[in-house]
Amino acid sequence: MTLLVTAFLDRARDHHPDREIVDYLDGACVRRSTYREYDARVRRLAGALVALGVRPGDRVATLAGNHHRHLELYLAIPLAGAVLHTVNLRLAPDEIAYVVDHADDTLLFLDAALRPAAALARAARPGMRVIALDGDPEPGELRYEDLVGGGTEIDGPPPRDEDDLAALCYTTGTTGAPKGVGYSHKALVLHTMAAGLADGHAISRRDRVVHLVAMFHANAWGVPFAALMAGADQILPGPSPRVADVAAIIERERATYLGMVPTLAVDLVAHARRTGADLRSLRALVLGGSTPSRELIRAIEEDLGVPAFQGWGMTETSPMATFSRPEPDAPPAERYAQIQMQGRLLPGLRWRLVDEDGATVPHDGVSRGELLLRGPWVASSYYRGERPEAFVDGWLRTGDVATIDADGRLRVVDRTKDLIKSGGEWISSLALEAVLLEAPGIADVAVVAVPHERWQERPVAVVVPAAPDLDPHAVLAALDGRVPRWWRPDRVEVVDTLPRTSVGKVDKRGLRELLGGTHNAAGADGSRVPVEPS
Amino acid sequence: MTLLVTAFLDRARDHHPDREIVDYLDGACVRRSTYREYDARVRRLAGALVALGVRPGDRVATLAGNHHRHLELYLAIPLAGAVLHTVNLRLAPDEIAYVVDHADDTLLFLDAALRPAAALARAARPGMRVIALDGDPEPGELRYEDLVGGGTEIDGPPPRDEDDLAALCYTTGTTGAPKGVGYSHKALVLHTMAAGLADGHAISRRDRVVHLVAMFHANAWGVPFAALMAGADQILPGPSPRVADVAAIIERERATYLGMVPTLAVDLVAHARRTGADLRSLRALVLGGSTPSRELIRAIEEDLGVPAFQGWGMTETSPMATFSRPEPDAPPAERYAQIQMQGRLLPGLRWRLVDEDGATVPHDGVSRGELLLRGPWVASSYYRGERPEAFVDGWLRTGDVATIDADGRLRVVDRTKDLIKSGGEWISSLALEAVLLEAPGIADVAVVAVPHERWQERPVAVVVPAAPDLDPHAVLAALDGRVPRWWRPDRVEVVDTLPRTSVGKVDKRGLRELLGGTHNAAGADGSRVPVEPS
Repeated sequence: MTLLVTAFLDRARDHHPDREIVDYLDGACVRRSTYREYDARVRRLAGALVALGVRPGDRVATLAGNHHRHLELYLAIPLAGAVLHTVNLRLAPDEIAYVVDHADDTLLFLDAALRPAAALARAARPGMRVIALDGDPEPGELRYEDLVGGGTEIDGPPPRDEDDLAALCYTTGTTGAPKGVGYSHKALVLHTMAAGLADGHAISRRDRVVHLVAMFHANAWGVPFAALMAGADQILPGPSPRVADVAAIIERERATYLGMVPTLAVDLVAHARRTGADLRSLRALVLGGSTPSRELIRAIEEDLGVPAFQGWGMTETSPMATFSRPEPDAPPAERYAQIQMQGRLLPGLRWRLVDEDGATVPHDGVSRGELLLRGPWVASSYYRGERPEAFVDGWLRTGDVATIDADGRLRVVDRTKDLIKSGGEWISSLALEAVLLEAPGIADVAVVAVPHERWQERPVAVVVPAAPDLDPHAVLAALDGRVPRWWRPDRVEVVDTLPRTSVGKVDKRGLRELLGGTHNAAGADGSRVPVEPS
Repeated sequence: MTLLVTAFLDRARDHHPDREIVDYLDGACVRRSTYREYDARVRRLAGALVALGVRPGDRVATLAGNHHRHLELYLAIPLAGAVLHTVNLRLAPDEIAYVVDHADDTLLFLDAALRPAAALARAARPGMRVIALDGDPEPGELRYEDLVGGGTEIDGPPPRDEDDLAALCYTTGTTGAPKGVGYSHKALVLHTMAAGLADGHAISRRDRVVHLVAMFHANAWGVPFAALMAGADQILPGPSPRVADVAAIIERERATYLGMVPTLAVDLVAHARRTGADLRSLRALVLGGSTPSRELIRAIEEDLGVPAFQGWGMTETSPMATFSRPEPDAPPAERYAQIQMQGRLLPGLRWRLVDEDGATVPHDGVSRGELLLRGPWVASSYYRGERPEAFVDGWLRTGDVATIDADGRLRVVDRTKDLIKSGGEWISSLALEAVLLEAPGIADVAVVAVPHERWQERPVAVVVPAAPDLDPHAVLAALDGRVPRWWRPDRVEVVDTLPRTSVGKVDKRGLRELLGGTHNAAGADGSRVPVEPS
């Protein structure tokens, strides 16, 4: 029998009709509903989509925040036989126009607040129907609730093969145009089962999950599907919740599972320390998106009293590929070190670590290689076959440089394109950042390569100070004994804030451009520290 | 990418080379080894199989107990591209000859103690090579350790499709000849992932599992594959361990997971009560094979201090189909009632409850219907297409009559062939047995239908007394107020022991034949109580 993600809707109806879906907006609870209602609304919505002319395989776009209607579209679009295309709402309007056109979306479900973002895409595709998710529709638009209210429950969804696409996301690469990653029904089902494994995210019926990760971002890490399968309660915090809102939602709803990027987790820890917010209902705070510092992991576990984990992956891996769960008997320091690693490969996936010639690199925890991945929820091509060089013999080239230890724990040490090659030797910008993040006085940091006449490339540290009087020399002194001396950045740039991409990652490409050019004679003013490689 | 069960061997090598595989024999530990060694031995064994002429798709039989060599064959046979056929060692020699011939096995791996059981099969298939798993090979046989020692690690296993068979078991139906159930690679991979779900058996890297379920019995419930995937330690207790051995193994090895039939669990509870054995390292004692009594569940949880669960399924479902995990907030009595139900469907499977006309029966916890199942690890035909009437439109007819409540909890109330139809109304033999099992003085009981002139069928209770002075009238009195009056068995037969099939189920077919014939005028002697239906 085929694996269809829409079968999870049957589970909602049969197994957990009374579990909750809760909406918050600006910190206030605005709606409480059940999977019973969800099931009925999704089936009517899917019927309405078919009545609107959606045909099997059509792409249907969403440009929307984290709310119950978006969650309904997650299932209704595949149930109508179509492909859920969640558009990144942080893209520029011309980028949105690009991906909507590239996907050839036939319908667009749109939050009122995002109308400006969609303007260029709509102008370029006058035939695309637009459905207003909230507020009053503008002329020519349809009203979402009219579709749900007027639709008849879908009768005999179109037959789908497990290899047919159910969803589509575009990566926001730091180079070139966004590339589409299609997710088949089979990929989503298997990814969802992996999310329920006791050794992984372990999402279960006992959970109440909070969707802080944007729903356009690799299907919110796949957690909505996992919660639907398991019958976990789902709490949707609305668009851009403040950290105080997040803490209040966790406390009020007794949430058990939260996934978030380290940057937000730092804010949440600071807020809880300041206010005494009690977040101990959380059985798991899963960090993802970038490598957390050990201090953050320690603070989550010791100061908040919440178990910390790390998930790692990318849009091309649906996105969960590894999970970091510490050994139960590890002492605290070792435990935090284990959580800081990217962890073990999820069952069902395969990996290889290869050198520049494609030869296998040993799993000794020291040898570095580019990580290749393969498996039922790992892309083996981009949508419409673009950028084929990202794949080799069916394997995804992750672009991440990593080590794997003898127990199969992955440590991502760098992006191939962020690696700094100085005098023929590699310098890890991630390792430098990790040490600097722990130094006093530094709130945030990015290390990038700039060209160098003699050494080809040299590292530069761009730091956001925690207080105005940051001494750049002290910054470099913090590295003494922690990294090889020749890794020390040639200079330190002090900035107010780091430029970030639309998904919140540091825009290293932009930083490199900003810092570019040789700098053999960089001056030692208040924000620059020249250091000769030794 | 295809789903192959052999990929779990890569996980053993990459992720848990140091986890343990431990063998016991007659209560003594006889071998401790690691997955690192397992991986190497399996790859050499698979190479030896290919060198012996095993070709992709060939069936290779095992007739063996629960030991590490059997566990090696679980992976080596599929890795060689062949199909693992685990023969039920409790079958009669002519039945073993039947299944080995029906499967057309090309090789047989044989425990020395089981040579007599294999004699007829070998005589009927002189071309079948036999490999002695232990002891000295007899003339014409090969020695297992010679294969492992002499084999070269398989180089490029034959390409397999995920729909190719990896394993084969025969059901020991109570009617007709055994029927083969083939398990594809895809079925086993998905079944294994389901076994790792936090809402299911939740087998994880933190576990140390004991394989008490026979390895010929639906792949020991699939637990060896789940442990291999997760990196759980595996403890093999050897053939027919005594209950004292099982308790000692759990205590000594700090075992965490144990699956067993209720009959053995009753013995284990009694032993622990008598000796004070501490079994609290177990995080889960999973009951399966028949419905446990509430008293057994209570005793496991309260007297042993071990969480009890129930798994349900059949050879045709690989075998796990549902899992019974109580709600975390249920008070004890409700908790035991929930565990006694067969529980929720595992994700990935679909179910239907239908009446005699095939119409859907509501999920109200009361309405009864035959349970139909479908899914990637549910058989949609028997091997070689036998008994097609067991399947309808791709659905497996389980032959079980069940209710499903509004929360999706299954309760199996009867086998269709064991249901008693009296005066046009159904009587549940399982419900009668459950009540009688809790009555004082009864050690074991079976209720079967016997023909009746007026009522078509009437129930008869066959009881094994706990003490010699059992009063049959008291037996019936125990039913007062617990079941409808007209359900009361027409008579009570007192016996020393119940006849059982080769897998330990009560042989109701045999009982019915023994009791058959009308009995309107059954006499009221010491072991018979005639009761008129009211």
